[in-house]
Amino acid sequence: MTFTLAQRTQRMNSSAIREILKVTERPGVLSMAGGLPAPESFPIEAIQVACDQVLSTQGAAALQYATTEGLPPLREWIARRLSQGGWRVDASQVLITTGSQQGLDLVGKVMLDEGSPVLVEQPTYLGALQAFAPYGPVFQPWAADALGPLPKTLSARLAYLVPSFQNPSGHCIGDARRREIALQAERSNMPVVEDNPYGELWFDQPPPPPLATHAPEQVIYLGSFSKVLAPGLRVGYIVTPSGDHPGTQALRAKFLQAKQASDLHTPVLNQRIIVQLLESGFDLEAHLDTVRARYRAQRDAMAAALSRCLPPGCTWQLPQGGMFFWVTCRPGHIDTLQRLPLAVEAGVAYVPGASFYAGHAPAPANTMRLSFVTLSPAQIGEAVARLARCLV
Amino acid sequence: MTFTLAQRTQRMNSSAIREILKVTERPGVLSMAGGLPAPESFPIEAIQVACDQVLSTQGAAALQYATTEGLPPLREWIARRLSQGGWRVDASQVLITTGSQQGLDLVGKVMLDEGSPVLVEQPTYLGALQAFAPYGPVFQPWAADALGPLPKTLSARLAYLVPSFQNPSGHCIGDARRREIALQAERSNMPVVEDNPYGELWFDQPPPPPLATHAPEQVIYLGSFSKVLAPGLRVGYIVTPSGDHPGTQALRAKFLQAKQASDLHTPVLNQRIIVQLLESGFDLEAHLDTVRARYRAQRDAMAAALSRCLPPGCTWQLPQGGMFFWVTCRPGHIDTLQRLPLAVEAGVAYVPGASFYAGHAPAPANTMRLSFVTLSPAQIGEAVARLARCLV
Repeated sequence: MTFTLAQRTQRMNSSAIREILKVTERPGVLSMAGGLPAPESFPIEAIQVACDQVLSTQGAAALQYATTEGLPPLREWIARRLSQGGWRVDASQVLITTGSQQGLDLVGKVMLDEGSPVLVEQPTYLGALQAFAPYGPVFQPWAADALGPLPKTLSARLAYLVPSFQNPSGHCIGDARRREIALQAERSNMPVVEDNPYGELWFDQPPPPPLATHAPEQVIYLGSFSKVLAPGLRVGYIVTPSGDHPGTQALRAKFLQAKQASDLHTPVLNQRIIVQLLESGFDLEAHLDTVRARYRAQRDAMAAALSRCLPPGCTWQLPQGGMFFWVTCRPGHIDTLQRLPLAVEAGVAYVPGASFYAGHAPAPANTMRLSFVTLSPAQIGEAVARLARCLV
Repeated sequence: MTFTLAQRTQRMNSSAIREILKVTERPGVLSMAGGLPAPESFPIEAIQVACDQVLSTQGAAALQYATTEGLPPLREWIARRLSQGGWRVDASQVLITTGSQQGLDLVGKVMLDEGSPVLVEQPTYLGALQAFAPYGPVFQPWAADALGPLPKTLSARLAYLVPSFQNPSGHCIGDARRREIALQAERSNMPVVEDNPYGELWFDQPPPPPLATHAPEQVIYLGSFSKVLAPGLRVGYIVTPSGDHPGTQALRAKFLQAKQASDLHTPVLNQRIIVQLLESGFDLEAHLDTVRARYRAQRDAMAAALSRCLPPGCTWQLPQGGMFFWVTCRPGHIDTLQRLPLAVEAGVAYVPGASFYAGHAPAPANTMRLSFVTLSPAQIGEAVARLARCLV
């Protein structure tokens, strides 16, 4: 049977990455494609203990329906943690989401009409493009220089950016540029969606404070426990702008209503496991230090392998955090999308850079995203050597 | 700050039920408002054992990102269980959702344009109205008689119904009417969304087979583990129509893409707990028999209390399953919405029936929904006695 589908389905596409991941699941392929955190970094035993305690002592509550906003102690913990710098966050601003992907979907649902202009970095996070696209916005490339997006022209329904260790570029916007963007957003009263899944994954020093610190009434902030604890729990959060202006309260109410209509609430068991873990003496800082050390070693292994193996003309920046290298091959020389089947044949996989470009301008065909968090340092060396042989 | 919000936010509202639930949380109120399953019915210990096994033996996989479709063994279990009657379901039709509320949201996202006519029962499930509303459909009351919705005129973008022990009416559509609706839906090639969260909660005999049995290529079926195991896990599913027509495959692909954009996938830990539970000798039938016996006793207590206490002119049907009584007071005598504050003052709560009506016709003000699954039989007696004193 052929049914009439919503017109927005014409704007939906399967994630190129997910399609690639399927191909790369064949045995023998060393994949630098997926952004899967190393499972060795998950605090499995601590989660197991927390889960057991939750089900032993609060089993009925952990398995029952719950409030749409999320568990109060979890919202309070998030507000406290985000308030450690200069940003003041109140628990009433925090809405727990089913992963921060849901946060992106709710941003689209609440903020975007068909035709709404949305400023996005080039390249930008593919999952955000996917989440927003069904709502029909017009993506506008955000003009940028080497320091990041330029603050000058901020006139759109909203601007979206990943300021710290961006997916896919790995770039971290510096403090001065953050302040300039925040200031300009306030001046032009344009909401900024600050997506920060990687901020805790720094290697040498923390990234500058979030943009929200400088424009707390202007920024819709998205966070997640996926990179900090484990993605399979699917617990993220939205921090709505601060203040109690009627407009801010209306925005908060609409996010809540959109969340309620989308899945009632995020699984309570998962929220309670995290609260139990965080309140029972689990040393989050020590855990994060371990993860950072692991990823730093993997980053270093990839940096060394890239320098050793890649043909002349390939360029990249050393990421100071996060999970990705962004490699640019000699212009006109390589089409990374065309070259991918050959690479998979040779036992290695990456994501072609064109996947991360929205809109009208032709995406550069000579870029690729390499994840360093899934493979061991030795595997990374071998994977990059295989890749290099495909780029000749 | 006041931002420009999407026009669809004007169609979003907070659930009347959730607002009422907040009021009724005050101590001393015996609430028949919420549809919360009795926590005594949750298999907490079995879930605890399953969870422990999952984290001991598959911890890394249970905490990692996973496929959008859902866990294959869970999809296969659901397909097998639904195929026990005359309906043949293949695992490829099953998409795991974050509760069946997400299934409703995805139906809206994939199927509904602004202005699309959607046939709904009167009264109908409030959560479906909330999920569909942001996509801008025009709700059309589905003409009905005492046996249920009439099959005669099925011309809309889709029809939505809860055939078994409906929320809020408690009504169960008989086999003949189901066949007639299914036949007419096929003739007019109109998709039917069959929402079946309560089908397992029968008291004397199972409901007739799903409509999907009679029109497997025509029905989008929604199911859930919320009423069978526990709602806090937030695991539900969509069964897309059977067959491999291009139109069917396109529909399935669009549901998958919409799910991916909405939250990537449903939490893996929760899916694996359910699979572990179901595959490790947990006696689901015995568990369901216990839940049914508990709810039947509560239903009987409420039926007796209603007969004993309610003033003349109040009418109701005895529900043969599910969680709700639907009570109609003498027309023109009582406005249940106006009367609610008085009831809460007297220590009892219900949901005014008007909440469950969509669209243009005035909703009957003299109806209410009473849940019998949260309170004990003794509490139900007291709650109905208090209610009766407010209806004089």
